[in-house]
Amino acid sequence: MLRYKIIIQYDGTSFHGWQIQKGHQTIQGEIEKALKNVISEDIVVYGSGRTDSGVHALGQVAHFDLPKKIDPNILLSAINANLNHLIRIIKCELVDSDFHARFSAKKRHYYYRVRTDSFLLDHHYTHHVSIIDTKLLNNASKLIIGQHDFTSFSKYNEKIENRECIIYESIWKEDKSILNYHITGNRFLHHMVRYLVGTMLEIGKNKFSLNEFKNLLSKPRESVKIYKAPAKALVLKQVDYE
Amino acid sequence: MLRYKIIIQYDGTSFHGWQIQKGHQTIQGEIEKALKNVISEDIVVYGSGRTDSGVHALGQVAHFDLPKKIDPNILLSAINANLNHLIRIIKCELVDSDFHARFSAKKRHYYYRVRTDSFLLDHHYTHHVSIIDTKLLNNASKLIIGQHDFTSFSKYNEKIENRECIIYESIWKEDKSILNYHITGNRFLHHMVRYLVGTMLEIGKNKFSLNEFKNLLSKPRESVKIYKAPAKALVLKQVDYE
Repeated sequence: MLRYKIIIQYDGTSFHGWQIQKGHQTIQGEIEKALKNVISEDIVVYGSGRTDSGVHALGQVAHFDLPKKIDPNILLSAINANLNHLIRIIKCELVDSDFHARFSAKKRHYYYRVRTDSFLLDHHYTHHVSIIDTKLLNNASKLIIGQHDFTSFSKYNEKIENRECIIYESIWKEDKSILNYHITGNRFLHHMVRYLVGTMLEIGKNKFSLNEFKNLLSKPRESVKIYKAPAKALVLKQVDYE
Repeated sequence: MLRYKIIIQYDGTSFHGWQIQKGHQTIQGEIEKALKNVISEDIVVYGSGRTDSGVHALGQVAHFDLPKKIDPNILLSAINANLNHLIRIIKCELVDSDFHARFSAKKRHYYYRVRTDSFLLDHHYTHHVSIIDTKLLNNASKLIIGQHDFTSFSKYNEKIENRECIIYESIWKEDKSILNYHITGNRFLHHMVRYLVGTMLEIGKNKFSLNEFKNLLSKPRESVKIYKAPAKALVLKQVDYE
């Protein structure tokens, strides 16, 4: 068996997220279907992590095993030719058999796109907010850096025992009326970036206090009633390995 | 009866164009529905022109008559509150009863958004092309300026007798990997901007000659086999009146 690593971009708007689901169009499902057209065999594709329904990616990573050697560039072209045009493999390479898209990943980079003007024509990729205090946003974002138990900022799942994540970068970057939030961590819990962004935006609107936010980070609580930003403005930018 | 003029923005992605159609979501239909919720009466809304299914607008204009006087700003807020969030009235004013959104219009401004890099995440508003000769594009666009019979560049309709349009502006503007085509005319035939853009892009790819393009402009032909650019990247920017 030979292991291939692929880097994938997708416009998640019309897909039901990464993970394969019966009766729904998913990224994993579409890639496996394309691979089957190429190889005439059922191949399982393992992603670095699931992305929610509607979330986009510019650098999702996955791996799969093939019984025979195919030139990675030819394989890339063949998969793309069979793939929905809103999903695109941008890199394909042979890797060691101990490489695992999920378990070997060291860092995951996301960004979240907010705009503060009323421009309508990027609605599919942007979350609109009206006036916001960017100083408060950045004060909140700094609190996220470091190691925390993010139970308060995730969809509660009793099966997950370890909810500690290490956050390396957490910053809002302003470019005219666009506010891009960049976050890098070793791992992320379910809906975590959307809960963090949603709550920070409430802080920026003066509807939620920085102290309360700090409390939720230091004293994790299950099933907190908290704000979740919409999926459509979230992008999985990059996954880092050794 | 009092006549109101409104300026409308919409993300056309999920609508079946401007004109009301049974069983389909259309911009006109949604605005009339919102107005009915506000006024409790059936009101017909007249647009400056139809936009195709999928075409967007930042400055579509329409008018309608109401039996009673309502403060235009209050009316604007009330319609917006009842409107699909992908359609938005940005201006509402009382006008003379001889104002007509379609027949009083002097100029219509459109732009068409093309990108030459592979960035995926504005797929809903942009047409992607690979390498293109922008000099050829601009040579073609200059030929369009002036008065021409645009039969070659429209969906043929024998009922339309006059197919002469006056084009005041026709220019490609480049900003890094974005190419925006701006066109202003007194009127436009059905699909005309999309046919012009589609053909210019073929010229820019060296797949269609500038001479042939010139010929189609000077010697109009019905039902030419010609290139139509996708609707999703076309925006009705502005309509000018006296």
